[in-house]
Amino acid sequence: MSLTKEEIAAWFRQLQLHICSELEAEDGKAKFKEDSWERPGGGGGHTRVVQHGNVFEKGGVNFSAVHGQLADNIVKALGLDDNQFFATGVSIVIHPINPFVPIIHMNVRYFELGDGTYWFGGGIDLTPHYIQEQDARFFHQALKNTCDRFDASYYPEFKKWADDYFFIKHRNETRGIGGIFFDRLKEDELHTKQQRWEFVKAVGETFAPTYRALVAKNKSANYSDENLRWRNVRRGRYVEFNLVYDKGTKFGLETDGRIESILMSLPETASWVYNHQAEMDSLEHATQQLLVKDLNWA
Amino acid sequence: MSLTKEEIAAWFRQLQLHICSELEAEDGKAKFKEDSWERPGGGGGHTRVVQHGNVFEKGGVNFSAVHGQLADNIVKALGLDDNQFFATGVSIVIHPINPFVPIIHMNVRYFELGDGTYWFGGGIDLTPHYIQEQDARFFHQALKNTCDRFDASYYPEFKKWADDYFFIKHRNETRGIGGIFFDRLKEDELHTKQQRWEFVKAVGETFAPTYRALVAKNKSANYSDENLRWRNVRRGRYVEFNLVYDKGTKFGLETDGRIESILMSLPETASWVYNHQAEMDSLEHATQQLLVKDLNWA
Repeated sequence: MSLTKEEIAAWFRQLQLHICSELEAEDGKAKFKEDSWERPGGGGGHTRVVQHGNVFEKGGVNFSAVHGQLADNIVKALGLDDNQFFATGVSIVIHPINPFVPIIHMNVRYFELGDGTYWFGGGIDLTPHYIQEQDARFFHQALKNTCDRFDASYYPEFKKWADDYFFIKHRNETRGIGGIFFDRLKEDELHTKQQRWEFVKAVGETFAPTYRALVAKNKSANYSDENLRWRNVRRGRYVEFNLVYDKGTKFGLETDGRIESILMSLPETASWVYNHQAEMDSLEHATQQLLVKDLNWA
Repeated sequence: MSLTKEEIAAWFRQLQLHICSELEAEDGKAKFKEDSWERPGGGGGHTRVVQHGNVFEKGGVNFSAVHGQLADNIVKALGLDDNQFFATGVSIVIHPINPFVPIIHMNVRYFELGDGTYWFGGGIDLTPHYIQEQDARFFHQALKNTCDRFDASYYPEFKKWADDYFFIKHRNETRGIGGIFFDRLKEDELHTKQQRWEFVKAVGETFAPTYRALVAKNKSANYSDENLRWRNVRRGRYVEFNLVYDKGTKFGLETDGRIESILMSLPETASWVYNHQAEMDSLEHATQQLLVKDLNWA
């Protein structure tokens, strides 16, 4: 029997719950709070938010499965042939307290039209406030290992896609160290739908062990007020990316999505300092030099 | 002799300097720091920024006079007949420390094309963290008084325009209590170019005494940590408006403007709390109820 949208949605829901348990275990104190919501046009979701843990200041792990009719401008913008849609996915952003623990984002999603057209999309990317090369290599290697189990072209292609996508054009800097990003994956001569789905599931399963390792390594690092100030400036850039460029955010705001679920990606505090310049030879300066595209970490 | 663009630019520059002195006098400690910059395509500006005063945490009073060739997409988006442009103006955003002192924004500007087409635009709007009805009435009355000296239709028309413009659609709330907003003012059967200019100058001159009165009244108010948290949440909404909707910000980001001058409008700190709800009968709740369009304050 072929893969159904209900089966995909159910797997995403259990992924959400599994990731929340893993994050709670790593934090030691934080408990996710769940808000379930319905979408007036069809379907709904479960937003799970953590606030003020030992490690995680604010984070969201969202699941949704929505359906209905797309607005004409969206149908046109996406170049679609049908306006009946179904969309399901898991979307995560975690803002840790400790400036040496990185911000992480993941999204895995499935989209289907009334005429049967479908595709998968998603990705994982990391935004360290301080880029540590050892951690950056570990993170990219974990993603590459997952990709390589399916197709040797995935990692190079999807890594490049992430570099291009998570880019703050007006700052001429990347949001962080990238990761992988992919969209519109469907069956083709080389891949069945089931193979695409196995890959998307593997990406979802890569999240928890990879992020837990990075959190465990850094969560006890000492930090100063200056480190916190820099963290907040980097968070400001994160806000700029999400509000100015992120397609998921824009799509959500334009289609009257649930605002609190869409904007759970924003940090509890962020900062903008006029003409902030990192001092030469500082850790902050070293990070700034690495916020560029096309670095090879794996 | 007819009004020249050089004369307009020179007047805007002295307005900038005058407003900075007035704000410094009200603050008692803050001194504006000036960064002068040139635009690669033609012209330049003077960005004046204040940080960490007694009253003002962060603020910018920008002057610019730029010229050159507009990109094709801009010419098309604005529906223009010529791509040679000149633009000059003063743009202000002030973020005070005390939650009972309102954020203020002003912009006055002049735009001219190579074929002689021109227009004036601008406005002043107020974003109190806590809306105090007496202050709101005072502010709107001051704007109305200025407008009424020129044309009885200005205040009602431009007040409505501000309500519609300074609106955070995805939150279904106004940014603050509005004010006046106008654009594309040129000569017509009822107004000469000189008359439009006199009005724009009067708007510019309304800024300092009006804001000083509001600052003087509230700058010594006591406040709590809870008041600061609410201030930061309201600042978060300000960031959302500026990055998602503000046309000046979008125009600047898309035309490779000077980023630090464009984004000086963002506060030093802002906050996003998941699903923040003001308690019933609190001052915060009272403010939230007033963040709607079409209230009559004057």
